[in-house]
Amino acid sequence: MYDSIIIGGGPAGMSAAIYLGRKKMKVLLLTLDFGGQAAKSSEVENYLGFKKISGPDLSAKFQEHIEAIGIESKTTVVKVVSKKENIFEVKTAEETLEAESIITASGKTPRSLNIPGEKEFLGKGISFCAICDGPLFSAKTVVVIGGGNSALDAALELEKYAAKVYILNLNPDFQGDEIRKDRVKKSSKIEVFSEVQTTGVYGEAVLKGLKYKNLKTNEEKEIKIDGMFIEIGWQPATDFVKDLVELNDLGEIKIDRENQTSCPGIFAAGDVTDIRDKQIIIAAGEGAKAALAAWRYLMTRH
Amino acid sequence: MYDSIIIGGGPAGMSAAIYLGRKKMKVLLLTLDFGGQAAKSSEVENYLGFKKISGPDLSAKFQEHIEAIGIESKTTVVKVVSKKENIFEVKTAEETLEAESIITASGKTPRSLNIPGEKEFLGKGISFCAICDGPLFSAKTVVVIGGGNSALDAALELEKYAAKVYILNLNPDFQGDEIRKDRVKKSSKIEVFSEVQTTGVYGEAVLKGLKYKNLKTNEEKEIKIDGMFIEIGWQPATDFVKDLVELNDLGEIKIDRENQTSCPGIFAAGDVTDIRDKQIIIAAGEGAKAALAAWRYLMTRH
Repeated sequence: MYDSIIIGGGPAGMSAAIYLGRKKMKVLLLTLDFGGQAAKSSEVENYLGFKKISGPDLSAKFQEHIEAIGIESKTTVVKVVSKKENIFEVKTAEETLEAESIITASGKTPRSLNIPGEKEFLGKGISFCAICDGPLFSAKTVVVIGGGNSALDAALELEKYAAKVYILNLNPDFQGDEIRKDRVKKSSKIEVFSEVQTTGVYGEAVLKGLKYKNLKTNEEKEIKIDGMFIEIGWQPATDFVKDLVELNDLGEIKIDRENQTSCPGIFAAGDVTDIRDKQIIIAAGEGAKAALAAWRYLMTRH
Repeated sequence: MYDSIIIGGGPAGMSAAIYLGRKKMKVLLLTLDFGGQAAKSSEVENYLGFKKISGPDLSAKFQEHIEAIGIESKTTVVKVVSKKENIFEVKTAEETLEAESIITASGKTPRSLNIPGEKEFLGKGISFCAICDGPLFSAKTVVVIGGGNSALDAALELEKYAAKVYILNLNPDFQGDEIRKDRVKKSSKIEVFSEVQTTGVYGEAVLKGLKYKNLKTNEEKEIKIDGMFIEIGWQPATDFVKDLVELNDLGEIKIDRENQTSCPGIFAAGDVTDIRDKQIIIAAGEGAKAALAAWRYLMTRH
C-alpha cells in the first residue's frame, strides 16, 4: 500500500513527488514518459532559474532531481482508478496497486483535426511533435496547423531543418507571445496563411499534400507538403479518473485552491486541471501544492 | 508610465517579471533586495530542477535570469500605492511612478517575540537570519526560537559554526519536514527544549543570555548565550497597499484563482498572499500566473 500514487511524470507530477518524497511518504510515480509536454518544448526561457534550456535538457534535470530523492517510478499506462472504502485501486497495464491518496498530474494529449486522411498518414508525414520529428524533414516542405504558442514553437523548431514552413491558422491573428510572433515574422522560411481551414490530406505511401479552404473567399486550395504538424490544442488525460472526479466544460479536472478534486483523497495538478495558464513553472508550483495538500490529508488518517 | 510595476524581488516577483518582460510589456521591478526569503535559505532541495543549491546561489540564478530578459529594476522602499482614475501611483523613498497595473509580490517580514530586551539587542546578538549572521558565531553558543522548518533550517545552518545550538520550541513537537527533524535529532551540537516560552533577554553591550519558562512545570530558567535567532513566523508586507486590497485574518492579501486582488488592476503572488503553502517553487508558479492575469487585464485596456 502506497501513501500516494502520482499519475503523470511531467513537471507537476515530478514536483509533487519531490515534496512527498522529502516528507518520507511512500510514493509511486506512474508515467508513460518523463517530462510531459515540457520535454517536447524546443527552447524554454521562462522557467525561473534557467535562462535558456531545451525542453529535453530541462526535463532531464527534473528526472535527475526525483532520482536523487529516491522516488520509485514505473513506466506504464494507468487504465483506471477506483475507490474502495477510502482506499484507491490503480489498475495499470500490468498490475493493480493500492494507495491512500492519488495525485493526478496526467497532463494533456494533443487534439486531432478529424479530417479525411489524418489517421491514415499519422506517422507517415503527420506528427504531433515538431521537436521529436522535425529532423526527419530536412530540406523538405512542412506545414504547421494552429495559431498559438505551440504552433509558433513548432514552426520555429521546423525552420531549423525544413526548406519551407507554412503555418495555417484558422484565426486572423496568432494567440502567442510577442517574442515568438516576431521570430516567425522575421523568418525567411516561414509563410503564414491566416483564416484558413484545413479540410483534408492526401498521399500514397506517405503524405503528399493538404487541402484547405480560405474562410474569407471560400476558395479551396491545395499545397504539396512532405510533413504536417498538428498544434491545435490539447485534450486533458482524464479517462482513468473521469468517473470519480468532476470535470469542467473543457474536460479539465476541477480543483479547489488546495488542489483537492471533488473526490476526497484525489488531488490534481498541472495541465490536466482547470488552472487557466498551462506553463511549466506553474505546473511545478501546483504539483508542490497538491503534494502538501495530500500530505495534510494523509496526516489526518495516520 | 509603466504597463506594470512589480513590488518585490523574491521568486514570485522575479517570475512575474520574466513573463511580462517576454510579453514585451514595459515593466519595472521595485525591491529592497533580490531573492526574498529564498536568498536566506541555507540549502534548497525542493525547487524542481535543482537537486541541491544554496539559497543565495539559487537567487543569484533567478537574478541572472531577469537580467538576461532585460528587466528594469530599482532597489528602493515602496511607501504607498494609490489609485487615480484607473492609473496607479507608486510612491517610493525617492520618487513617484505611474503604472497601469501592479503586481504585489512583497513577501513577508519576520515576526518579533515582543519580549523585554529584544529591540535593544537586535544586531547585538539577536538576528532574524541564520544564513546571513551564522558565521559571526563561530565556536559560540546560540539559540534558535521556533518550531517550524525555518527554525530547523536555522539550527542546521548554525551548527556549522557554533559550538552549541539550542532550539526553544513553544510546542511539544516540531512542525517541519521529517528530513529536517531527522537531521536535527542526529546532530551532536543541537539540543532541543520543547514546551518552553522565551520571556526575556539580557546583556551589557551585547547579548549575554535569555530567560525562559518551562510551560509544563512553570519553572523559570536562564541560558547563557552569545547569539539568538528568532524564527517564529512572518508578517505579510502589505503596508503600502493595505487601503486598496482586502486582507485575510492573517494579514495576507486575498487573491482569486487568477491572482486578482479585490482591487482591479492589482494582482498579487507568493508569500504575501493567502495561498496556503509558502514555498519557492509555488511562489515562482504564482508569479507567472499573476503576470499572465495582469497581461490579460492590460490587453483589455490597450
